[in-house]
Amino acid sequence: MSYYFSKTLNVNFENAINKVTESLKNEGFGILTEIDMKATLKKKLDVDMLNYTILGACNPPFAYKAVLAENMIGTMLPCNVVVQEQKDGSIIVAAVDPVASMMAIKNETLGEVANEVRMKLKKAIDNL
Amino acid sequence: MSYYFSKTLNVNFENAINKVTESLKNEGFGILTEIDMKATLKKKLDVDMLNYTILGACNPPFAYKAVLAENMIGTMLPCNVVVQEQKDGSIIVAAVDPVASMMAIKNETLGEVANEVRMKLKKAIDNL
Repeated sequence: MSYYFSKTLNVNFENAINKVTESLKNEGFGILTEIDMKATLKKKLDVDMLNYTILGACNPPFAYKAVLAENMIGTMLPCNVVVQEQKDGSIIVAAVDPVASMMAIKNETLGEVANEVRMKLKKAIDNL
Repeated sequence: MSYYFSKTLNVNFENAINKVTESLKNEGFGILTEIDMKATLKKKLDVDMLNYTILGACNPPFAYKAVLAENMIGTMLPCNVVVQEQKDGSIIVAAVDPVASMMAIKNETLGEVANEVRMKLKKAIDNL
C-alpha cells in the first residue's frame, strides 16, 4: 500500500506551504510544528538538499478521540505533510496516510478515527 | 507487535522531560519539536487532561540516510517520544518504534536504517 497522498504543484515553495496550510485548515487541521529539513541537515551535517519542509498537522477533535481510544497514539501524532522541491522546480506535497502509519496498532476505535482523518487529509491534498 | 518502548519514572513532569532529552542526546537525537497536547486540547476543545507532551526526536545522520533511501519518509519523521503524567503522579515515557510505524513501507535500505534507529531509541528509554 502507499503510505501517503500526494500532488505536484507548479508554484514556488513558499506558495506551496501557504496553499497546503490553507487547504489543511479547510479540513480542520492546524499546523503545530514545522521542520525545515534542508536547514537542519545543512547545519548538522553540512549536506545540501532541495527545500524540504515537514508540517505537523493536527485536527484537535480527532486527535482527542485518538488519544482517548489509544493512550500512546501521541507517538504517531501529529499527521505529517511533506512539502518538497523537485529538481525541475515543481513542488510535491505529500500527506501521511494515518491508516498506513498506524497499521501496527490493533485497535478498532482508533482504526475508525484513522480512517476519518485519512479521508480529510486526502481531501486536503486533492483540493490543492 | 508493540509500537513503542516505554518506561515509568517516579519524578516530576519537568524532570522527566529533562531526563529523556538528555538520554536521547546521548544516543545522538536532538529535539526538533515539542507539542504540549494538554495545552493544545485545552485551548482548542476546552477539555482537561493530565500533562502530555510529544517530543519530536531526530538523529540527523540517520534522518539523512532515511531520506536518501525513501524520499517521502519525512511523512513519518521525526521519531516521537511521548511524556505523559499518570493519575498516580508517575510519568510514562514512550518512544515510537520506527519499525512499527514504517511497516507499510517496503524498502530494504530504509528497513535497515529503521532497525538501527529502533535500537538507539530503545537504549535511550532503557537508560532512563
